[in-house]
Amino acid sequence: MGEAAVSEAPARRSRGTRRDNAAKPLGVPYIVRGIPTYDVLSEENLQKVERTADRILAEVGIEFRDDPAVLDHWKRAGAKVEGVLVRFEPGMLREIVSSAPAEFTQYARNPVNNVQIGGKNVVFSPAYGSPFVMDLDKGRRYGTLEDFRNFIKLAQSSPWLHHSGGTICEPVDIPVNKRHLDMVYSHIRYSDRPFMGSITAEERAEDSIDMARILFGADFVDRNCVILGNVNVNSPLVWDGTMTKSLRAYARANQAAVIVPFILGGAMGPVTNAGAIAQSFAETLAGCALTQLERKGAPVIFGNFLSSMSLRSGSPTFGTPEPAIGSMVVGQLARRLNLPLRCAGNFSNSKLPDGQAMQEGLMSMLSAVHCGANFILHSAGFLDGLLSMSYEKFVMDADVCGALHSYLAGVTVDDNALALDAFLEVGPGHHFLGCDHTMRNYQTAFWDSTLSDNEPFEKWSEEGGSTDMATRANRQWKKTLAEYKAPPLDEGIDEALCDYMERKKRSMADAWY
Amino acid sequence: MGEAAVSEAPARRSRGTRRDNAAKPLGVPYIVRGIPTYDVLSEENLQKVERTADRILAEVGIEFRDDPAVLDHWKRAGAKVEGVLVRFEPGMLREIVSSAPAEFTQYARNPVNNVQIGGKNVVFSPAYGSPFVMDLDKGRRYGTLEDFRNFIKLAQSSPWLHHSGGTICEPVDIPVNKRHLDMVYSHIRYSDRPFMGSITAEERAEDSIDMARILFGADFVDRNCVILGNVNVNSPLVWDGTMTKSLRAYARANQAAVIVPFILGGAMGPVTNAGAIAQSFAETLAGCALTQLERKGAPVIFGNFLSSMSLRSGSPTFGTPEPAIGSMVVGQLARRLNLPLRCAGNFSNSKLPDGQAMQEGLMSMLSAVHCGANFILHSAGFLDGLLSMSYEKFVMDADVCGALHSYLAGVTVDDNALALDAFLEVGPGHHFLGCDHTMRNYQTAFWDSTLSDNEPFEKWSEEGGSTDMATRANRQWKKTLAEYKAPPLDEGIDEALCDYMERKKRSMADAWY
Repeated sequence: MGEAAVSEAPARRSRGTRRDNAAKPLGVPYIVRGIPTYDVLSEENLQKVERTADRILAEVGIEFRDDPAVLDHWKRAGAKVEGVLVRFEPGMLREIVSSAPAEFTQYARNPVNNVQIGGKNVVFSPAYGSPFVMDLDKGRRYGTLEDFRNFIKLAQSSPWLHHSGGTICEPVDIPVNKRHLDMVYSHIRYSDRPFMGSITAEERAEDSIDMARILFGADFVDRNCVILGNVNVNSPLVWDGTMTKSLRAYARANQAAVIVPFILGGAMGPVTNAGAIAQSFAETLAGCALTQLERKGAPVIFGNFLSSMSLRSGSPTFGTPEPAIGSMVVGQLARRLNLPLRCAGNFSNSKLPDGQAMQEGLMSMLSAVHCGANFILHSAGFLDGLLSMSYEKFVMDADVCGALHSYLAGVTVDDNALALDAFLEVGPGHHFLGCDHTMRNYQTAFWDSTLSDNEPFEKWSEEGGSTDMATRANRQWKKTLAEYKAPPLDEGIDEALCDYMERKKRSMADAWY
Repeated sequence: MGEAAVSEAPARRSRGTRRDNAAKPLGVPYIVRGIPTYDVLSEENLQKVERTADRILAEVGIEFRDDPAVLDHWKRAGAKVEGVLVRFEPGMLREIVSSAPAEFTQYARNPVNNVQIGGKNVVFSPAYGSPFVMDLDKGRRYGTLEDFRNFIKLAQSSPWLHHSGGTICEPVDIPVNKRHLDMVYSHIRYSDRPFMGSITAEERAEDSIDMARILFGADFVDRNCVILGNVNVNSPLVWDGTMTKSLRAYARANQAAVIVPFILGGAMGPVTNAGAIAQSFAETLAGCALTQLERKGAPVIFGNFLSSMSLRSGSPTFGTPEPAIGSMVVGQLARRLNLPLRCAGNFSNSKLPDGQAMQEGLMSMLSAVHCGANFILHSAGFLDGLLSMSYEKFVMDADVCGALHSYLAGVTVDDNALALDAFLEVGPGHHFLGCDHTMRNYQTAFWDSTLSDNEPFEKWSEEGGSTDMATRANRQWKKTLAEYKAPPLDEGIDEALCDYMERKKRSMADAWY
């Protein structure tokens, strides 16, 4: 059972933050879960889903477009290739992915921030990919490099996120063909946590990895994972050449691709959960196998992103119950492959950091945590159906990530926690406020949110200004940005990175689409 | 495994509500869960918690104050009674509670609304006990009988709640010693679902049961459960006479007492989760056993309400991670006693229906759902640390209850859900919008919230007025109240109930505290 793992949690852990304490609270580099995963499907039904995935792969197949090298890989591996359509005998892809590691380390430039991906480990990473940003003061507008850097700084300042993420928002003030350089540089410059590189073109993936080589050294990068690339299937059942070329670039460099189908049930997949899960499994399995054909033993993360749609309006919906419970099944399937899992994070289609935003977000986020996801992209910031990063939601979600540190620790059972001495001391009818056991334990006992208001109504309305959580979040992100200090970076490395960027930028004309 | 139970779900179920459809959507009388419970603690650790509870009961004991009949019960049962302190040999209480039913029916005056409590069944009931009410128009004020009736009407109108509840809010415009009569009458008059009676004094419990006898007939009531009484332990380790007298009144009448310790860790119990759970288990077990000494075989519900407190301000906190994960353990323990479980519902200390309210509420509500609670009191409405019922939060929570119907159904695995025919029809690269499988399944595929906004940003801001969820909830509860129609009630019964009330009221002087 999972709770045994509590004792394995890194010693650096320190729960509770204090609003009145200026010292930066310390989190942990990643969570080691103390509770088991939530398995909802029986062995018999899991096998039915797997057999359906096998039949999709064998009878329908997957198209791999615009990347002939992939078709060569599949031919050599024994798949049936007709044009761009590839079909797979049952068991073939499972055999191929068995060479991928079940768990691996992603290194950070500050080694205390290295994360362990796989097994019982959970890594929270910010949201990824929105063109817009929003806050309560200025509303919604296109993201800029300044916004991008602000979110890196907010993530770096939070003790409850473990990863700097990738395209936290699109910096649309930088040309499309050059912005990956600024993004990777900004992650390195303003954070000392692990990060992700570009996947929008093979050469941008290569640039991202080259910059990681400048930071870590080429030999180290060839032997260790230092950068992730998040590649999407073009569901249903199509892999585009842009994605497979990037996927192969990461695998070739021994870096981890994260393989993610984005299935809106009813559009890119069936409206029934079991079918969407089987499809997702088939698509991801093929992508994971491809990394192993490119470089056997390369790390890879089995990804998942189920969602539903409103069949009245055609709008995508997020944080709804069907994907939340469906993700539990995806978790069970990924563990049977012995691969690290990425799952649904903190999503909402709300356009404000309101009740809808937090309800849908938590439904989705708890699902990721329960299903056993090891790498939770989109842990903080998303609103507006993935189209906007919200400054307020970002810090509200980071606070939820803090609560989840306590939640995932589970229930410790030992003599101190069982507290028999306290009952013998206090006895019936007396309070525990001043007893020895309370004095020994209260500082670490309970998660202490920095954004929830727990004051009595009168104090909240008279002294607190009757604020809602979003208003308090607005104050918090501004204060955090004002107090941010960049982690030190070796000047020689900084110069080398800037030189690389300048040289690359000079070699290209600006492209804006 | 749980998913087999999906097929047992009552046929009346109809998922999805439509904003543009005037027909009232139908829910189900209660949920039959299609997913297993979330068990987080190992057998070894469960036994440690149970042994600690046994030692608390044997070495510290529980005080039973101001109710000599209880002490007589315990003496006859073989407990050690010294003054009001009662101590129990290990195993004794477990043996006594073994006569209580694992599952029972609570009858409603409309039989289609009967609920089954225990086993795989889940019943959602509104929040209970707040002195204040609030809404966005008028803010916070003391509750009145009009508010009380409004919440009954809102609950009755929701397809996602199953129970009318009890003291939904305190109607403080009615004298303390008479308001139970108006409350019970209002539940009967304005709802045709099951409900709860008074527990604030033995004679009020008796009055509540007498009114149920008028409605259902005395013989029927003696043989069947038609009313619940929610009785609280005065934690730590004290049972007050007021509560045990009410508990015994319900048990004597073969009605179900719900036994609930309210433990704020650090105040009424230790700050460590395992100790608070052991205490809660001991206190509830003693209360459950007492019902069986009063009347062997009477239905009883094993209740639980863990919470934490801010050790900086002393304020209670709700929807925090420690009680959420601790409740999973309480669920495991209750199932080992083979008793129906009541667990934490939808709580928040927010003073507004904002992000904090929904985040804390869902953390707590999902915990209740995961831990296997059969009767979830406080499913809708609470804000302000249990002090206020919010009109907006009530309908927002009821919407969450709707989503949980889909969530608890789990993942159906059959040929239709696996959708292989759809993949064979659609093939790689095409969408599923118009395929046969989608046409056959889309109407029941996805939960459809009536309060979440899933429109694109432009449509939300231009046509939707840029509303947040609370604003939409404000409109919804007003519309629901305006459209409410009382379910028909037999005129003779109505007259008999009113006569009973009038007679009782005339027999007492008004008491206001």
